[in-house]
Order: sequence, then C-alpha cells, then structure tokens
Amino acid sequence: MSSWLLTEADLEALELGAALLGTGGGGNPYIGKLRTREELRRGNRVAIVTLDELPDDGLVVSLGGIGAPVIGVEKLEKGDECLQALRLIEETIGRPAVALIAAEIGGANAMEPMLTAAQAGIPVVDGDGMGRAFPEVQMMTYLIYGHPATPAAIADEKGNRIVIHDAADMFWLERFARSIAVDMGGTAGFATAPMRVDFLKRYAIPGTVSQAVALGRMIQQARAARENVIDAICRQQGIRLFAGKITDVQRELKGGFAVGGVDLEGLGAHAGETARIAIQNENLVFWRDERMEVCVPDLIVNVGLDTGEPITTEMLRYGQRIATLALPAHDLLKTSRALAIVGPAAFGYPELTYHPLPRAGG
Amino acid sequence: MSSWLLTEADLEALELGAALLGTGGGGNPYIGKLRTREELRRGNRVAIVTLDELPDDGLVVSLGGIGAPVIGVEKLEKGDECLQALRLIEETIGRPAVALIAAEIGGANAMEPMLTAAQAGIPVVDGDGMGRAFPEVQMMTYLIYGHPATPAAIADEKGNRIVIHDAADMFWLERFARSIAVDMGGTAGFATAPMRVDFLKRYAIPGTVSQAVALGRMIQQARAARENVIDAICRQQGIRLFAGKITDVQRELKGGFAVGGVDLEGLGAHAGETARIAIQNENLVFWRDERMEVCVPDLIVNVGLDTGEPITTEMLRYGQRIATLALPAHDLLKTSRALAIVGPAAFGYPELTYHPLPRAGG
Repeated sequence: MSSWLLTEADLEALELGAALLGTGGGGNPYIGKLRTREELRRGNRVAIVTLDELPDDGLVVSLGGIGAPVIGVEKLEKGDECLQALRLIEETIGRPAVALIAAEIGGANAMEPMLTAAQAGIPVVDGDGMGRAFPEVQMMTYLIYGHPATPAAIADEKGNRIVIHDAADMFWLERFARSIAVDMGGTAGFATAPMRVDFLKRYAIPGTVSQAVALGRMIQQARAARENVIDAICRQQGIRLFAGKITDVQRELKGGFAVGGVDLEGLGAHAGETARIAIQNENLVFWRDERMEVCVPDLIVNVGLDTGEPITTEMLRYGQRIATLALPAHDLLKTSRALAIVGPAAFGYPELTYHPLPRAGG
Repeated sequence: MSSWLLTEADLEALELGAALLGTGGGGNPYIGKLRTREELRRGNRVAIVTLDELPDDGLVVSLGGIGAPVIGVEKLEKGDECLQALRLIEETIGRPAVALIAAEIGGANAMEPMLTAAQAGIPVVDGDGMGRAFPEVQMMTYLIYGHPATPAAIADEKGNRIVIHDAADMFWLERFARSIAVDMGGTAGFATAPMRVDFLKRYAIPGTVSQAVALGRMIQQARAARENVIDAICRQQGIRLFAGKITDVQRELKGGFAVGGVDLEGLGAHAGETARIAIQNENLVFWRDERMEVCVPDLIVNVGLDTGEPITTEMLRYGQRIATLALPAHDLLKTSRALAIVGPAAFGYPELTYHPLPRAGG
C-alpha cells in the first residue's frame, strides 16, 4: 500500500461511508466535508498514508471534535478548533506531529483529521481508534491498549485552550474533556497524547479511511446503477439482519446520553418476526424475537429500506420502514481487555455475552 | 518593613484574622492551619516578605483552593494540591516562582500559600488579591487590573493536573476553573499566571497577611484580658453597625451559590431599629431600617454578640444574637474599574450606589 491524495470525490464517498460506520451516532460529517472541500479548492492537500510510510519514532496525534453528549451533530463552530488543539499539544510536548489519525472513523469525526491535515500540511494515517463510532474517549483502542491519555488538549472557537496535563486514568480524562466541552458551548476540538508510529502499528485499527471511502463509493455506484443499495453493502461487508417497520421508539436523556430503544415488526422475508434495538447515541444491541443476536462492539446500522440511506438514532420515527445491517468489529475490539471497555457490560448490559459476528456476508 | 518568619502563634492569630476578613464566606482556615503547623514542626519555614525585598522581574504565583461554589469549607483533601498546581505552572512557563501570594486573605485561602511555601521553600508576599474573601476568580485585583489570567493550573489529590492555557477572558477562566474543580470532587488547588513583582507593587493589596495576624492577635489579647472583643476590633479597624437578634434567615441555592438574606431586630442601643443583610456566600449589603448603609466591596462581618467570634453565613440561625461590623475595603477595590467587578451591580444589585465607608472607627 502507498499513500494517496484525498480528492473531492473521495470526500463525498467518505461522508457516506463514515455515516454508515457511525452506527446511528457519531454526528453528521456534512459540515466537516464542506470545510475540507474548501481547503482542497484553495490548493491545500491531504495525503492518506499507511503507518509503514512513517518513521517508527514519529509522533502521531489523534484528534476529533468532542461534544456535549446530547449534541448529536458534532459541528465545530469555526473550523480550526482541532488545529488549535494540535498546536497546543505540540507546544506542550515541544515536538511536532508527523501525522494525524482519527479518533473515530464513524460520523463527523471522520472529517476532522482531514480538515486539520489540510490546514497543518501533514498527512493522515489510514486508520482510527474505533473502526466505528463510540460515545466516550476511553473507547479508543489507543487508550484501551494502554497508551497514556495525557497530555490532551482541547480548544474552542473563542480562543480558549486547555491542556489536561495528567489524568488519574482514562475515565478521568473523559470526564474532564466532556465537561470542558460543555463549558465551551457544546463542542470543541480535542487532541490526545501523541503516539509513536510503532505503537499505532500494533493498536490502531488499520485501513479504516480506505474502508469508509470504499463503502461510500459502493453506495454511490449502486445508486448510479439503480441497484439496491442494501444488496450492494451486504455483498461486500454487511450482514442483513432485518427488514421491518418501526412500531415504537423510546428515547430519554440519561447521564447526558440519548438512551432508549426501537421496536420493529418484520416485513417481506421477515414477516411474523419482531426485533428490538437498544440505543445509547449509537445502536448497541439487536434482538430478534427477544433473542439477542448482535451487540457492541459489532456494528449495527439502520438504513432506509428503500433508499439505503444511513439513519441516525435521533432520526428514527414510528412507522419508518428500515433495514438493519450488521458489520463485524475489528479484532482489536474483541479481546477481553477491549470488551471490558466497549462490550455490552460497559453499556449497561452485564447479562449479555458477546459472540462475534461471522465475518462473511449472510 | 522587612521579612519575618511565621511562628505557630502567628498561625493561630492568622486563623482568627482570616475568618474575620472572610466576611461570612471564604471557607474555614482550620485544616490549613493544622497542616501548616505540621510543616513548621517538621522544621520547614515560611518567610513573609514585602515586595521591596524581591527583584522587580521575579515571578510570583497567586494560589489558593478553589471549590464547588456550595462547598463552604474549601478543604483540600491531601494538602499538596496547591504545590502541584504551582509546579505545573512553573513547568508550563519554564521558570521558577520567587515567591507566592494569596489569591484571597479571607477564610481558608489565607492558609494555602503558607502551607505551599513551607513545602516549596519559597517566601509568601505580605499581601493578597482581595483584602477579604470574594466568590469568584475574576474578583482578584490582579485580574481586575489587567494581568493575563493564564496559564492557570489546577490540581487535585488524585493526580489530575490541568492547565488552562488560554482563556478568552477572566470570566471564562472562572467558568473553566470552577467546573473542573467540581469534576475533581469539589475542591482543588489553583494557581494563576505568574506575575512580575513590579506589577504586584502596583496592584496587589499590600500588608494583608500582617493585617490578618494583627487582627487575630487583637482578638486573642482582648479574650485574654477578658475585654469585649467587639470593642477591641472596632477600636482599631472596624465600625460597629448593629447589634441585634436574627428574626429570619433566607437561603437558597442559585447558580451554585448560597444566596439569601438575614433579618435583624435591634438590641441595646439599637432597640427599635431593624436591619437586613444580603448574602451570596459572603455578606454583600447592609440595610438599616430599609436604607442601604454598607455594601461590597466594603467588608460586612457578623460576630457573636457575646463572644466576638466570626460567624460564617451558613452558620446564621433564627434567634442568634449577633453584632454586625464593617471594615473599609482597600482603595484598589473602589475604582470604577474595580467596582464593575466587585461592586453591588456585579452581585445583582444594579440599583445600589457604592459609597465608601469612612476609614476611622464610628
């Protein structure tokens, strides 16, 4: 593999793929896409590189927008908040970053490293720390596998810049970063401790920028060919779990998160079946006829039954006709160390046992 | 004036004087006194110096405990939180502090610089940033008179250390520091941007450590001589406003502060009069027979009518017999620039006009 330059067409595909990998959450990548496109049109470039192309002792900064938990669309106000956070981290450690990497590839945060890379003139690693979207900072593989979380920097559009210099652990980092973001007005740019390239070779989820772009491109091609989009997704990566009509949506605010569930009644091949999906910002658990079939960290994605368009959890409505797909999580999320942080128990379902989704389509 | 070494006897006097200058708030200096005494007994020393004894370009760090607004007693859990905040500031700017100065001399924060100075082996400036206690960070003369508020550092007993590197203004600093302290469990050590000695010569409130110790000593001597403590205070610095019985206490939580008031019915020479004191953590405004007589930034202090013991606002109770005294604020708090930040309008009384209290006893 070698590096490639992100094109405007790639950006459009990345937007679609990132929305799918957001598994119902992660915020909308649209604004970030527009801003990055603006940078490309101004002549700035974004190189996507693999870790093999970087020196082992080079430092890579993971970044993204961080928001008040209930703000679904993690829109940064000014567009240079992540750049400010990057600069503050570099000042704090006294060394420049050789590249950026996404904190999470799902949702709005797929775009933030692209935008910042265009502004800073450094490349973006083809990979991320989640392979999807998760609601909290400690759910990045970087921290799950023991990289120090600090110093981490957070910046807003008003000129406020804060360094979390030491945190007792990654849960403390999450707590501080979240409430500083709330104080900053709901969203901020967030960069965590620089990581050596050789650490990332072991613990970043590889190839997820390419994966998101490829997913997006597949959807675009299916649409252009007037082919069924869901078939196209499932042919390559996804498993079709269900097709049905929403009979009930429950949503409440709990600890700052949108928590609830969706009930479905089967249609077509699934007539006579029922299904339920539990939600905490993202889709967490899928039950068919009250038997659990898929849960975090595997990806559960709802798309419009007729359009194939990804549907975020806050857009789910009574009567909607949707298809539910599943994508397998990366193996780095399936170790017992990772499951303690991103498995069903971590989301309030200690009674569920995670069984990995089959890798091939079904 | 020249430097002097703080003795255990000074500490006892400082505790009393600081409680009086707390004007009903500022937290209890008792724990800080015990910890500082421990340091002295271990052989560590605290030198109190005047600014003339320090080089003009030396850097002085202002520090104190910062707490959740409703936590009256700003007790630090471990005792080295302010030292950690100091060290983090020094690391951030890359220069050591030549001395410490109190953020506020009223209440618990009179002791924090003493404790930290004993731990760090540097002197404490005879002065502070309030000459009393106030509830918020921007109410320090240092910030009122334009010193940059950042970088500011905040640390807790769990090893969490955060630098507020840039704040859009001092109100943003207050917001961030307060909510980080809340996240840290309610109290934390807080150090603001190092200040040059020549800046402090103009804008610190001078001599307030000596003043607090002298006030405390006067109370001790009056007690030892079985003299009336209130008479002793008023002979030197205070004005006796009122003596009465509490007929009503209102207190509610508003924006994180204990806000309310106290109604009094006159006793003795004040029989037939009524009085009211408005409260926001500290005593804010004193009315006699519904006419405003004294307000912030001047100091309004309640003491036990028979004991002369300072009474914090949270200890005021129906039926209590108290004397209300007033002490004039320092001139640095009376300029229009300062009154915008610490005058009655800043505390929600825009209809009141500040008239300076007479300087002599009355």
